[in-house]
Amino acid sequence: MPAENSPIKALEQRLSDIVSIKLKDDRIFRGRLTRCDQYMNLTLGDAVELENDETKAKYGSILIRGNNILWIQIPE
Amino acid sequence: MPAENSPIKALEQRLSDIVSIKLKDDRIFRGRLTRCDQYMNLTLGDAVELENDETKAKYGSILIRGNNILWIQIPE
Amino acid sequence: MPAENSPIKALEQRLSDIVSIKLKDDRIFRGRLTRCDQYMNLTLGDAVELENDETKAKYGSILIRGNNILWIQIPE
Amino acid sequence: MPAENSPIKALEQRLSDIVSIKLKDDRIFRGRLTRCDQYMNLTLGDAVELENDETKAKYGSILIRGNNILWIQIPE
Amino acid sequence: MPAENSPIKALEQRLSDIVSIKLKDDRIFRGRLTRCDQYMNLTLGDAVELENDETKAKYGSILIRGNNILWIQIPE
Amino acid sequence: MPAENSPIKALEQRLSDIVSIKLKDDRIFRGRLTRCDQYMNLTLGDAVELENDETKAKYGSILIRGNNILWIQIPE
Amino acid sequence: MPAENSPIKALEQRLSDIVSIKLKDDRIFRGRLTRCDQYMNLTLGDAVELENDETKAKYGSILIRGNNILWIQIPE
Repeated sequence: MPAENSPIKALEQRLSDIVSIKLKDDRIFRGRLTRCDQYMNLTLGDAVELENDETKAKYGSILIRGNNILWIQIPE
Repeated sequence: MPAENSPIKALEQRLSDIVSIKLKDDRIFRGRLTRCDQYMNLTLGDAVELENDETKAKYGSILIRGNNILWIQIPE
Repeated sequence: MPAENSPIKALEQRLSDIVSIKLKDDRIFRGRLTRCDQYMNLTLGDAVELENDETKAKYGSILIRGNNILWIQIPE
Repeated sequence: MPAENSPIKALEQRLSDIVSIKLKDDRIFRGRLTRCDQYMNLTLGDAVELENDETKAKYGSILIRGNNILWIQIPE
Repeated sequence: MPAENSPIKALEQRLSDIVSIKLKDDRIFRGRLTRCDQYMNLTLGDAVELENDETKAKYGSILIRGNNILWIQIPE
Repeated sequence: MPAENSPIKALEQRLSDIVSIKLKDDRIFRGRLTRCDQYMNLTLGDAVELENDETKAKYGSILIRGNNILWIQIPE
Repeated sequence: MPAENSPIKALEQRLSDIVSIKLKDDRIFRGRLTRCDQYMNLTLGDAVELENDETKAKYGSILIRGNNILWIQIPE
């Protein structure tokens, strides 16, 4: 399948954009995407945890293990 | 087994179609299929979350990790 | 082990037959088997969800991710 | 390790024997072992589901996905 | 790492010894180890299920899928 | 994808820094990162378990299995 | 990444030391580390199960399947 159809490649093209990440335990993190790999392991800068769209906690720089991720909302 | 019998290939052929996706946690997402890979990682455009067939939330562009997917309803 | 003893090959030989599929979450789907692969990813045509042997919902064409499958009942 | 010590090879040698299979969800299936592969995916003929050693349901021919299996009782 | 340090090799050296096996669902099986492979799939002869150190059920020959195993107690 | 974008490489560059690690069971460990590998298996020195930001237990040197990790907070 | 940074190599270097092992089901085992492999499968000699730092049960020689392990406390 051509690379331009790869969801992971699409994620790489959003490096430095702000993304929201839903984990399997229902937590939502938001931050600047600074790195990602083929397993969806990724790092966020200026990461915050959200609850009802409000900041619940600030984490600075955080590495999220890909296999915990449910979905990633990417800015249009 | 011949490629035309591959369920993943069948999904690729529906790029740009509207699909409904059921996750293991029972959530349903609907949107335009814009990318997919062999693990069923995929991206949706104009994605919405449905509850009782009504729109519960709008996500714009979203990447769903394939291993969370239970089934994908494909338009006839 | 000879290919004729492969359970996956046996499934492939039932393409276009009606099968019932039990998922790990106890749901049962029934439909015409239209595609399958080595991970038991498969597509059904005219798929319905059953509850107590009655049709609970109609899905048309559906792709089921293999790792959710508990068992597949194959017609004799 | 020599092949004669392989548990999977031992299973293959029981093709056409009656086996009992316990799934992770505690269900027990019994039937004639007709196929198996290295992942313990297997097919049973004349399969029945047991509850307290009594037949609860009849399935005919069934394919069980190996990763759901807890143990397989093999006739002596 | 040298083979003599391999836990799986240590298990192979106990073929024909009596072992106790704890599964993830807390059940304990005891029997004569007759086969094992690198995934800890194994067969027991004269297998019994124990509850509070008493025999709860007798299974004869049983194949246990390795990924269900928590630990295996090996005789000194 | 270039190595400088790898989240695992980013973790390796923090060896000897203090990191906080959230496990899937909600426990938080903090300590000096002394080793890590591609699966996020890692060792911490002077490891403590935290509860409500207070030290709940001291572990000295600890090896954490990577697949239990939810996220790792990295100092700015 | 250099081998001296491998958490698994660090574990191998503690063969014959006393280690404490926390499993995902919250049980703690302590014993002399006698073997380990790259999956963290390991054997303990003179193994005991601990509850509130007291010996709850003695197991002699035990093989623990690596994928059940949460963390391993290594003596300083």
